Amino acid sequence: MVRFTQPLERLIEELQKLPGIGRKSAQRISFQLLKTDKKNALALAQAIVEAREKTFFCSLCNNITANDPCEICSDPQRETNKICVVEEPFNIYSIEKTGLYRGLYHVIAGNLSPLRGVGPEDLKIDGLLRRVEEGGVEEVILATSPTTEGSATAHYLTDMLKRYKILLTRVALGLPVGADLDYVDQMTIAKAIEGRVAVK
Amino acid sequence: MVRFTQPLERLIEELQKLPGIGRKSAQRISFQLLKTDKKNALALAQAIVEAREKTFFCSLCNNITANDPCEICSDPQRETNKICVVEEPFNIYSIEKTGLYRGLYHVIAGNLSPLRGVGPEDLKIDGLLRRVEEGGVEEVILATSPTTEGSATAHYLTDMLKRYKILLTRVALGLPVGADLDYVDQMTIAKAIEGRVAVK
Repeated sequence: MVRFTQPLERLIEELQKLPGIGRKSAQRISFQLLKTDKKNALALAQAIVEAREKTFFCSLCNNITANDPCEICSDPQRETNKICVVEEPFNIYSIEKTGLYRGLYHVIAGNLSPLRGVGPEDLKIDGLLRRVEEGGVEEVILATSPTTEGSATAHYLTDMLKRYKILLTRVALGLPVGADLDYVDQMTIAKAIEGRVAVK
Repeated sequence: MVRFTQPLERLIEELQKLPGIGRKSAQRISFQLLKTDKKNALALAQAIVEAREKTFFCSLCNNITANDPCEICSDPQRETNKICVVEEPFNIYSIEKTGLYRGLYHVIAGNLSPLRGVGPEDLKIDGLLRRVEEGGVEEVILATSPTTEGSATAHYLTDMLKRYKILLTRVALGLPVGADLDYVDQMTIAKAIEGRVAVK
């Protein structure tokens, strides 16, 4: 294989380990990092180091944070009687962007997946049960993805949580806003019909 | 706007400055860098710093290199009577992969583009003329892209180089190998017909 000069080749190899970055993208990014102001390139290196050194998981909800508990868990304005269960920290960001939900979160850090050997013990479920047991929680919203794995996880969590006197909800399945019915898959249309709501 | 914890937000912002990386990809990469072994994340940061600190442009051909002259310019096995002109250092890699070309290169670092305000003085053309003037060069292959800008650059270089007693060539335009004629654009088909070669 033809190789670039060694420091460049090493940078390309490291970039290729990132999700969604193939050889070509890694090359393109490398050249950009070599062409840009040195300040910019070093700022990225520094940001990586700092993100690794200054962040960790919130001891309550497992969100990524630089302070424990995280900004959401420690925000006195949040409704502490609701916990929304998500797969990954970035899901919190997606929900927060709606501006609609003012409760707390719990990141379980993945989904059940027998195929990939991920069992309940690999997920951060204990902490969720502890938070519910401690009381004060009135609703747990299951917001894992509507995939096979996300649904399996939601079912498992339902089994674990149904013994508590709380309202247990699952995010609605249906048509995405702005979708053209022609381009929506049949499973989604079926769920949208099943979950239809009365209009006044 | 909803923001992640500050060190993470900064990492996402720095990643977004890279070519082809939008907000979503930057988030995904950031989380990967936080989830992976600390060693891997720091290896990337280190690779960026080293690539910036140890590489520079070859004083002869403008290739990216850690030694001057670069590995190609200093390789005694190369045919020093041929210079292939390319836009960017990574184009060298693409040509080297073919294993077909054993001459030298010259990176002009871009293309002419009146629209983007790039004139001949912004490209590394002087060094190319100097190499040709110094003698020993018998052929210059113009391998800029077959785009409007790449073709304009090839025309300009032709004007500059035609006064020297050298063979001046341009890479062939035609059908890409493996292409289905139905899916090839008309300009390319036209070029393939124009440039047709006799079969024995």
